Amino acid sequence: MKKYNMLVAHGGGPTAVINSSLQGVIEEAMKQNEINNIYGARFGIEGILAENFINLGTLPAQKISALGTTPSSAIGSCRRKLTDSDLPLIFDIFRRNDIRYFLYNGGNDSMDSCDKISRIAEESGYELNVIGIPKTIDNDLELTDHSPGYGSAARYIAVSLMELACDVESLPIHVCIAEVMGRNAGWLAAAASFAVTPGRGPHLIYLPERVFNQSEFLEDVQQLYREKKGVLVVVSEGLRDSSGKLICDSGISDGFGHRVPGGTAQTLSKLVIEELGIPSRSEKPGLLGRASIAHQSAIDRREAYEVGSFAVKSAVKGHSGYMVSLERLDMDEYKCTLKLVPLDKVANKEKKFPLEWINKRGNGIIKEEFEPYALPLLGQPLPEYVSL
Amino acid sequence: MKKYNMLVAHGGGPTAVINSSLQGVIEEAMKQNEINNIYGARFGIEGILAENFINLGTLPAQKISALGTTPSSAIGSCRRKLTDSDLPLIFDIFRRNDIRYFLYNGGNDSMDSCDKISRIAEESGYELNVIGIPKTIDNDLELTDHSPGYGSAARYIAVSLMELACDVESLPIHVCIAEVMGRNAGWLAAAASFAVTPGRGPHLIYLPERVFNQSEFLEDVQQLYREKKGVLVVVSEGLRDSSGKLICDSGISDGFGHRVPGGTAQTLSKLVIEELGIPSRSEKPGLLGRASIAHQSAIDRREAYEVGSFAVKSAVKGHSGYMVSLERLDMDEYKCTLKLVPLDKVANKEKKFPLEWINKRGNGIIKEEFEPYALPLLGQPLPEYVSL
Repeated sequence: MKKYNMLVAHGGGPTAVINSSLQGVIEEAMKQNEINNIYGARFGIEGILAENFINLGTLPAQKISALGTTPSSAIGSCRRKLTDSDLPLIFDIFRRNDIRYFLYNGGNDSMDSCDKISRIAEESGYELNVIGIPKTIDNDLELTDHSPGYGSAARYIAVSLMELACDVESLPIHVCIAEVMGRNAGWLAAAASFAVTPGRGPHLIYLPERVFNQSEFLEDVQQLYREKKGVLVVVSEGLRDSSGKLICDSGISDGFGHRVPGGTAQTLSKLVIEELGIPSRSEKPGLLGRASIAHQSAIDRREAYEVGSFAVKSAVKGHSGYMVSLERLDMDEYKCTLKLVPLDKVANKEKKFPLEWINKRGNGIIKEEFEPYALPLLGQPLPEYVSL
Repeated sequence: MKKYNMLVAHGGGPTAVINSSLQGVIEEAMKQNEINNIYGARFGIEGILAENFINLGTLPAQKISALGTTPSSAIGSCRRKLTDSDLPLIFDIFRRNDIRYFLYNGGNDSMDSCDKISRIAEESGYELNVIGIPKTIDNDLELTDHSPGYGSAARYIAVSLMELACDVESLPIHVCIAEVMGRNAGWLAAAASFAVTPGRGPHLIYLPERVFNQSEFLEDVQQLYREKKGVLVVVSEGLRDSSGKLICDSGISDGFGHRVPGGTAQTLSKLVIEELGIPSRSEKPGLLGRASIAHQSAIDRREAYEVGSFAVKSAVKGHSGYMVSLERLDMDEYKCTLKLVPLDKVANKEKKFPLEWINKRGNGIIKEEFEPYALPLLGQPLPEYVSL
């Protein structure tokens, strides 16, 4: 039997567990007789185009197992949009390197690239098994119960905001506005609701799924400040006004032409000072929230490993044009299984936070709805902080 | 023997280990025959003036021991400046509540309040033993080797920036500017130097002890971006230009009349985009960095406990008008002892980061100088993240 090579690449922003998926890919591929070399493309599509590969199968076992607790993407990633003119070159490189298995780990933009490569392979008759591995802290991938990377980022937000709420409560001198990542989907900001304990904030949570009403925001902040002096507000970076304009635009676009939001908390903090005369400050952990190993969710890490391993098995079995998906089997006792879903049904789509899980005023989460779905994803129990 | 009551209060911003000091105070005071009730003032000076006390000695042992892993100040804190007109009222309250031991945990502003109370007690012949307990993430207290709270905050910065450096390196598409707390002293921002590993950022670190030279900053960023594409810059929130003006002012003043900086990273990030046309983003973990239990330094937590306990013993022995101080006994193998230093020698003074530990260009730390002093304070070994 002729053996072929496998190539794995990462696209888009890293998560705290994307390297666990990589570990799952490497360890599973090493078991498969059909696979010869396991290449990793450095910096995603760019590494493929530059033929910048690393031979992952020859890494010391210790390095491979350390991947599970290594932040960021160990082989690098990119935000480069795959263009039609890239495709012939990519297939030349695949051919030249005997690559017959291609795994691409990413979010909805990356699944589009993955889908394109899969379709061209089929059209051109080049035998290539293409499998997408899901990943995004935004949790906005369609056709999967949730996305690996989300649980850890959500845990980071829940624990960090629990700690921030303690701080704001203990020195109640200001309104504190914390910004959470998530351009169009509020799943991550919604995890701030798990930081709430009786009598403690976060007091207000705003998601991008709802138009941001500035005057209601100011009313609510003023009212809470009168009552508590220390107020904690959580805002998704992607908040927009009724005209669709971002509350704060970072001034840059990404490789896919999307405007990058950023600075929403600082902008709103200045507004609170200027409009209400109330002291206010802002925090923006930003990228720290997708890189924290201390806040990895144990379940998220395990699942990230499993989707990687399942992708290899699926490719070897001859499947192509699919993304690995997590299916929830039981809502009472958390249990998921893995299956395959067509790439073209996932590519470029965004799963938003359900509007019916946001309260009427648009300043909080209906926890009874959100908790059964999301809390298990955060893994081990959240810390409990005493109050005197 | 008549027993008297002890009062403990917190002033200024909390740290990740201020509650360990509180635990040390309570557990030591419970052992002392001279002490009757152990009161905690809720929200610092404000709690004293409002006679808002909590009886700490009657708390369940489980709650007391949980303090060591509880973020923020469990009894609350304040930023209220002690005025001369407060003093008679405070002494009325002390008298009425039989308080003869007063412990105040705080930074240089709080040590001033503590000193005032101590002096008035002496002048008025009211028998009161006043001891200050040092605490500040800024590490800017005089006459102590370092301040409890610093080690944990520094560990948070070192680990978080190590993780952020991995992220920036793995997706090298922007300049990332991270803002670190510290209005006038750069000790905390300097801890970012411990995040540096071979070939990885942070690439530039700016402290408030040096005038911020904007054109040199832009030159350095441009040069690094050309070489690496992913550049990590660390800025202290308190950076000022040559006229002494803050790079970014949050728009508010604190209770002591100090202008509060904030937004420096976002301001500089916009500058990079506008002046250099290079994509840039900013992160500002801010208060999260003083509240993180996951990043507590074990040594810091132990020392915080010990300074609390030592303060009780010192007060009971009859000392007054002093702050507990840490003295380094050995620079090779980390070892500290505790002693007392006069409050008036500490009050309102700021220990700055040594200029000779900053490199010539003012954009980095001379690690050989800083490391022997500071690294032991970060406690348990820092994580090591593999690179492929």
